[in-house]
Amino acid sequence: MTTPRTLEGIVDKIGIGLLGYGTVGSGVGKLLKTNAEDIALATGRPVELRRVLELPGFSHPDLDPALVTDDFDDIIEDPEIDVVIELIGGTGAARDFQLRALRAGKHVVTANKQLLSQHGAELLETAERNGVHLRFEASAVGAVPIIKVLRESLVAAEVETIFGIVNGTTNYMLSAMTETGADYADVLAEAQRLGYAEADPSDDVGGKDAAAKMAIMASIAFHSRVTLGDVAYEGVTRVTALDIAHGRRLGYVCKLLGVARLIDGAVNVRVYPAFIPAAHPLAGVSGAYNAVFLESEAFDKIMLYGPGAGSVPTASAVIGDVISVVNTAKGSFTRNCLCYKDLPFFPSEDVLSRFYLRVRVSDQPGVLARVAAVFGDEGVSIRSMVQEGSGAAADLVFLLHPAREAHLFSALERLRALDEVEGEPGVIRIED
Amino acid sequence: MTTPRTLEGIVDKIGIGLLGYGTVGSGVGKLLKTNAEDIALATGRPVELRRVLELPGFSHPDLDPALVTDDFDDIIEDPEIDVVIELIGGTGAARDFQLRALRAGKHVVTANKQLLSQHGAELLETAERNGVHLRFEASAVGAVPIIKVLRESLVAAEVETIFGIVNGTTNYMLSAMTETGADYADVLAEAQRLGYAEADPSDDVGGKDAAAKMAIMASIAFHSRVTLGDVAYEGVTRVTALDIAHGRRLGYVCKLLGVARLIDGAVNVRVYPAFIPAAHPLAGVSGAYNAVFLESEAFDKIMLYGPGAGSVPTASAVIGDVISVVNTAKGSFTRNCLCYKDLPFFPSEDVLSRFYLRVRVSDQPGVLARVAAVFGDEGVSIRSMVQEGSGAAADLVFLLHPAREAHLFSALERLRALDEVEGEPGVIRIED
Repeated sequence: MTTPRTLEGIVDKIGIGLLGYGTVGSGVGKLLKTNAEDIALATGRPVELRRVLELPGFSHPDLDPALVTDDFDDIIEDPEIDVVIELIGGTGAARDFQLRALRAGKHVVTANKQLLSQHGAELLETAERNGVHLRFEASAVGAVPIIKVLRESLVAAEVETIFGIVNGTTNYMLSAMTETGADYADVLAEAQRLGYAEADPSDDVGGKDAAAKMAIMASIAFHSRVTLGDVAYEGVTRVTALDIAHGRRLGYVCKLLGVARLIDGAVNVRVYPAFIPAAHPLAGVSGAYNAVFLESEAFDKIMLYGPGAGSVPTASAVIGDVISVVNTAKGSFTRNCLCYKDLPFFPSEDVLSRFYLRVRVSDQPGVLARVAAVFGDEGVSIRSMVQEGSGAAADLVFLLHPAREAHLFSALERLRALDEVEGEPGVIRIED
Repeated sequence: MTTPRTLEGIVDKIGIGLLGYGTVGSGVGKLLKTNAEDIALATGRPVELRRVLELPGFSHPDLDPALVTDDFDDIIEDPEIDVVIELIGGTGAARDFQLRALRAGKHVVTANKQLLSQHGAELLETAERNGVHLRFEASAVGAVPIIKVLRESLVAAEVETIFGIVNGTTNYMLSAMTETGADYADVLAEAQRLGYAEADPSDDVGGKDAAAKMAIMASIAFHSRVTLGDVAYEGVTRVTALDIAHGRRLGYVCKLLGVARLIDGAVNVRVYPAFIPAAHPLAGVSGAYNAVFLESEAFDKIMLYGPGAGSVPTASAVIGDVISVVNTAKGSFTRNCLCYKDLPFFPSEDVLSRFYLRVRVSDQPGVLARVAAVFGDEGVSIRSMVQEGSGAAADLVFLLHPAREAHLFSALERLRALDEVEGEPGVIRIED
């Protein structure tokens, strides 16, 4: 039997400065209190929340008002603060605060995916120059420790593909559209009412949130810098209930996927809505859950699944990072900055993809022949076609063989120009 | 842009001594070679395989014969060896070698689940006393980094339940029994022919392999020592094709589950075959794959999925541990030994479980009443009953409401004693 450990003899505290006491920040405050003993026993050092940066006049029922300050200098100048947790978000003040904290020799833990995916190199290099750690588990997949797994467990496993559902808001919305047949705008309004979507949902529904996460994960997995600007992303704004219903009849479920691949030694990172087979493990991931598949020759595939957001799950990832910082060898030289390769990018227009394509046409003789001729001219080959509806207008639903994306989009442009084609065609990639 | 790093300036090598060059050992040898640069860049130190312990006369096409020794002293006395990787298995020589390596100030990385689950306390305390690390990711779920996630990311998250499929051999066998309707013995023979089951499959089919893994994971998750002897385990040897078929008609799939729970602050760890709903995410985990759910108030649930065994996946976990050892702060005092609690165990007979129960009876008037009376007497309440077959004998298939296990097994004993009951009843727990 092991003798239970006690806190006796543990004196060297870890001082925490917390920037922002909103959804995640208050979750961190709560976990720091309720799990104080576990953290102390896991690290050998008790944690102490010393300062919280918030707006003047801020108060919160769980927070000692004496800890609150609206002056970042109070944090930077406190020699007892070892770790700064940045949860204010954005790329302005947050960047300034992180850089100043790192330069002052303080470790930084953050959930700020937009900042990391746009200014990661600057921040990581600043951390390294100052011999401190920058950790950002909560910037990727919430409570799911994908960053730790990629940067530590699988660092030598040559991950080739990262593939998954990394945005809970759109996953909730697509699940709801699939189940109820409701259209995008109605589901968004309902998601906002229930708190699953923010008042300004554009980062989520436009794919930027998922793109930032994919950039961060791809950088770590491929050891090569990928920024938000390197990610081609589409959101769910053009997904219609009609296309979801057509896909469903064909055995597919629509998900917003993040896909990062090494293709011929080059990096391709994208976010797009895609049809996946109803029996695929990702098809069963619904609501606010996220799931990420990693593929490598070394381990075939690994999947991690869990809540992608939320106050306490995200806070749990932040606390994991605090513990990791304390327990990691200071000065182990590449621990922050693992982007030691400088891989080229693979152009998205050259990627071979499979597509679902729905074209609404006026029901005239010869229309199918004219549509098919466009595909033929562009070298896009048809695997199957179903005509739905009749009368004045019909939907032609095509499943296409793998084609270079440039060819597909060139065909699409010509289809739009045909007199017989009505409205905007539905275009969704198919992933198996 | 980040300047690509080079190996220039890296001189301080990590010397490796490898014990055993079998399935996993040769995988480690291969990965150390092919991923040498990634490992060096991730840790700042290149790895060098300096010695391999094998039987006299051993040779392997990928292995320089000059590295092979049959004398452990060659490894223990080499001051350039920093990390000993133990892959010979068993609890005899392996234990002795691990203890000697730790006492000599060498870190130990191992895949030896039986040794860890039986002598973990001794080994971890020896590591701690000598200021070195003992790592054992590959002893749990193969390439899936569950130990790292539990001991680092989720150390303060108060995991309450670990629940999953942690043995690939039995998962393959149950998948095959479900798909083909074949019986246990035939499927085992086929699994042995294909290399999915060993010549002596008793540790796998009897549940001991899964039990050892559950003991290791539960110890880390609950911060309290759980040894193999604390795990109540059953294997798949009594699962019949008949019961699998009955379960299937009721919407269930049979899986060998490892289940570790905190119940009223006490630990209960078990392995048993169970029916889970066909729509449950674990139901889709087939073949040699493993999957583990973690549950906690902090993050609701997280699932990790991947190959549970195999040469290269397991070797990948070993390499991850080597990197972790090199990168972890020496002397961070609780890093090895996280069992600082001393929780009581919750008796399995007091656990409330749901059961499937199949009783074959001779078709006589009043037999159902007599069987039902036994349940009534023992306080076990019936949720549904289906009678299958007719003529001389029929199967009564019961789904029972949650009952204390002691009550169920007492009812079972009385059923066996009834004249009308033929053969051994089929008993399988139901988990949702």
